[in-house]
Amino acid sequence: MLEDKSQELTPISKLGEFGLIKHLTENFPVVQNSTKVSIGDDAAVIDSENQKVVVSTDMLAEGVHFNLGYVPLKHLGYKAVVVNLSDIAAMNATPTQILVSVAVSNRFPVEALEEIYAGIALACNRYKVDLIGGDTTSSNAGLVISVTAIGLENEEKIVKRNGAKPNDLLVVTGDLGGAYLGLQILEREHSVYLANPNMQPEMEGYDYILERQLKPEARTDIKKKLEELDILPTSMIDVSDGLASEVLHLSDQSKVGFHLYEEKIPMDESTIHTSEEFNLNPAMATLNGGEDYELLFTISPSDFDKIKNHPDFTVIGHATAEEQGNFLVARGSNQLIPLTAQGWDAFLNKE
Amino acid sequence: MLEDKSQELTPISKLGEFGLIKHLTENFPVVQNSTKVSIGDDAAVIDSENQKVVVSTDMLAEGVHFNLGYVPLKHLGYKAVVVNLSDIAAMNATPTQILVSVAVSNRFPVEALEEIYAGIALACNRYKVDLIGGDTTSSNAGLVISVTAIGLENEEKIVKRNGAKPNDLLVVTGDLGGAYLGLQILEREHSVYLANPNMQPEMEGYDYILERQLKPEARTDIKKKLEELDILPTSMIDVSDGLASEVLHLSDQSKVGFHLYEEKIPMDESTIHTSEEFNLNPAMATLNGGEDYELLFTISPSDFDKIKNHPDFTVIGHATAEEQGNFLVARGSNQLIPLTAQGWDAFLNKE
Repeated sequence: MLEDKSQELTPISKLGEFGLIKHLTENFPVVQNSTKVSIGDDAAVIDSENQKVVVSTDMLAEGVHFNLGYVPLKHLGYKAVVVNLSDIAAMNATPTQILVSVAVSNRFPVEALEEIYAGIALACNRYKVDLIGGDTTSSNAGLVISVTAIGLENEEKIVKRNGAKPNDLLVVTGDLGGAYLGLQILEREHSVYLANPNMQPEMEGYDYILERQLKPEARTDIKKKLEELDILPTSMIDVSDGLASEVLHLSDQSKVGFHLYEEKIPMDESTIHTSEEFNLNPAMATLNGGEDYELLFTISPSDFDKIKNHPDFTVIGHATAEEQGNFLVARGSNQLIPLTAQGWDAFLNKE
Repeated sequence: MLEDKSQELTPISKLGEFGLIKHLTENFPVVQNSTKVSIGDDAAVIDSENQKVVVSTDMLAEGVHFNLGYVPLKHLGYKAVVVNLSDIAAMNATPTQILVSVAVSNRFPVEALEEIYAGIALACNRYKVDLIGGDTTSSNAGLVISVTAIGLENEEKIVKRNGAKPNDLLVVTGDLGGAYLGLQILEREHSVYLANPNMQPEMEGYDYILERQLKPEARTDIKKKLEELDILPTSMIDVSDGLASEVLHLSDQSKVGFHLYEEKIPMDESTIHTSEEFNLNPAMATLNGGEDYELLFTISPSDFDKIKNHPDFTVIGHATAEEQGNFLVARGSNQLIPLTAQGWDAFLNKE
């Protein structure tokens, strides 16, 4: 796509490193009061004003986390930010700043980087976070994006992975499995396209799951909703690698077991239909699929009444004593199936 | 080198992503009181205790910032941390935490990553900073390391690039040009080796400049030395891209010009000798070479007496009115040569 119009495009070397950073970041306004020094000095300066500083980083690599054959660069920039904001939300903190570093080969023109930064800008604007630093470098290899996200929160509000107690309820936001099935559609249509570039991709009816894959959102809205319900989770994590893997993380750090009820796992109708189309068990797509970026948390059983009819939350299980282990309670049979982490692994799932 | 003994080495896929991170980070102790939550949750938590949070990030890419043909992996891990700590020192802040993300191709065994993390651990120990987060992923391409460094400092102590006034003195720590000439030696001997692998590299007599290139240090010691002299710089930057480029940054942000005296630029004797060996003007190596990671700063002229005989500091010029521009005052002739940024640029200097 980019190659076709390369005669109009600007090579990165024309701007140089400093010129490029300046060019790409000039339209990023500072909106957070806590941002005291932004891009342009040796480092940025943040005023945390008695709040704790929450910080997380994630790296996305071409061919491992994304395939430029079907992921638009703008979506990639957006998603790279969102997956990091999701980690801040998973601490029950409010994201405030990001730093973004990008390594690109010289085959990318300036216009490609502009697309990535347009996606980053969109995410900054949507989530009211400031881009306060970063680095842009060439690479001999593919595209690598590294984002560090910073959030601020009062200490008593921060929720870690290690606070779940036996009998706590296991709750998830939104619905699961969509991002994984969206990826299946993208990969199928991309294969069809590679076999015959004249074929039109069949994307109709898959809007929801495609958006879940290409333009996920971080559940930064959940913090306020929980506060309104007067609920502070006892532990929390975001669903980036698949439900099974995340439950095992909470189990490991909280020293509890979990019973997870297959029939309770929330799924969108299109997720279920598409699973059937691919001959997949829909629950397996939620357990092992990943990239949904919903929040998974535990609450005291005494908070059940506050949450039970809320459209954003689904109780999907409960914590047990650690010795009881971690199980999926199968739909219908109530058979106990040991939970194993077959979630997404950057070293195993190669495209 | 690594390929020769691959039968004994561990493929990364054997450990998986979580196992790998756990394995690589298990020997990193937490030494900073400000580190409240470290590796193992969705995000780390820092208690800044009324200090401002200073944060910077840098990305190093194989074949652009380093050549694994002659850079040992342990040195690479060490240097990746140091260059980021240098940015924190350049704000006159104290580095306290780092986050490190590494993308590696599957051609690297676990043992190679262990070497990189051994270097990171060495730097953490030397500079008393905590590794509090990061990411490890495979890449289709070479090795990319992204480090985010965090520091804490009281607001009134933080020094930015924009505070220099006309007549302020321009001061640099240590000596310059060594890292650049160390790189010339490494590249020369690497070419010789490639041409004839039986040739022994001639590294004797180059210890100092090789160490400047392979194992640079961040001048985190300067903050305390300046405090003891009761000096607060009016502006500061670290010398990562060459003296000329850094002077122009201070000029640009402080809205002043600079006169920089060639004969004052501090150089080690081995830097001068090696320059002559390569038929290079030694001053040019300091102006355009980069990677020295010394600190360049301005002080009020009234502070001159405090600093004039200090072994760590050299006054190399002074600020002028902005309209006067930026000039190198040539040795002997006192001719004014316009300063231009020919410093190291990741998009221009390809190996």
